[in-house]
Amino acid sequence: MTNAPLGLSLVTLGVADLSRARAFYTAMGLAPSPQGNDNVVFFQMPGGVLGLYSRAALADDATVDAAGSGFAGITLACNLDSSADVDAMIARAATAGGRVVKPGQTVFWGGYSGYFADPDGHLWEVAHNPFFAKDDRGVLAIG
Amino acid sequence: MTNAPLGLSLVTLGVADLSRARAFYTAMGLAPSPQGNDNVVFFQMPGGVLGLYSRAALADDATVDAAGSGFAGITLACNLDSSADVDAMIARAATAGGRVVKPGQTVFWGGYSGYFADPDGHLWEVAHNPFFAKDDRGVLAIG
Repeated sequence: MTNAPLGLSLVTLGVADLSRARAFYTAMGLAPSPQGNDNVVFFQMPGGVLGLYSRAALADDATVDAAGSGFAGITLACNLDSSADVDAMIARAATAGGRVVKPGQTVFWGGYSGYFADPDGHLWEVAHNPFFAKDDRGVLAIG
Repeated sequence: MTNAPLGLSLVTLGVADLSRARAFYTAMGLAPSPQGNDNVVFFQMPGGVLGLYSRAALADDATVDAAGSGFAGITLACNLDSSADVDAMIARAATAGGRVVKPGQTVFWGGYSGYFADPDGHLWEVAHNPFFAKDDRGVLAIG
């Protein structure tokens, strides 16, 4: 047994329609892992795994009531190397069936950022932060 | 401009009380990054960054209504090397001010898993999955 810190290995998004969600994230350039099956989809990314699972089944797994609405209180962020990359990623999301929530724009902290929602409403910030670095595997490494 | 796939760089948790949330995650073994300030806390992890930010400010940043309740439809997962590690992490969360939502138990997919909620209700699954590997940096690598 170790005393390792809490670490984020995987983020699971609850979705209403697994096929629709898989198609969206595939169109965003991700390849479904062979570890998935008819009930769950996994995407390997440089820093961990993104999972898609039925929203009802996810609530059931956590033993919580599946009811919920409005702002989830959590956002995912994709950091890119330039403002042009941000605009391109948000445009790609719109084409793939997402919704542009906030077009890319210069923001108060000195970077460039926008938001899209995936088909289930999960919010992704797409940002270029000139003060943040990435390591040799593409993982955000701010120190 | 690149055509890189969508990647998850950072997860931001909206919180009601930044000091309380920072204390909780610090007690979970994470060290606040010097990149943070009085309004935002960042924790560097092997696969990216976990951020804490005012829930209202996070909604404002995304230009969405801050109102929301019930199941967020998203869970974070921490994969560990043994069932004993899972139990220890969930116990640590309870001591740190979290809430045990589902005690660690053997689950249908052949692993061992439980859930805790942080002080703002964000759900963390803590799991041992004997079928999933990690790379040399501790990043979940399922292929």
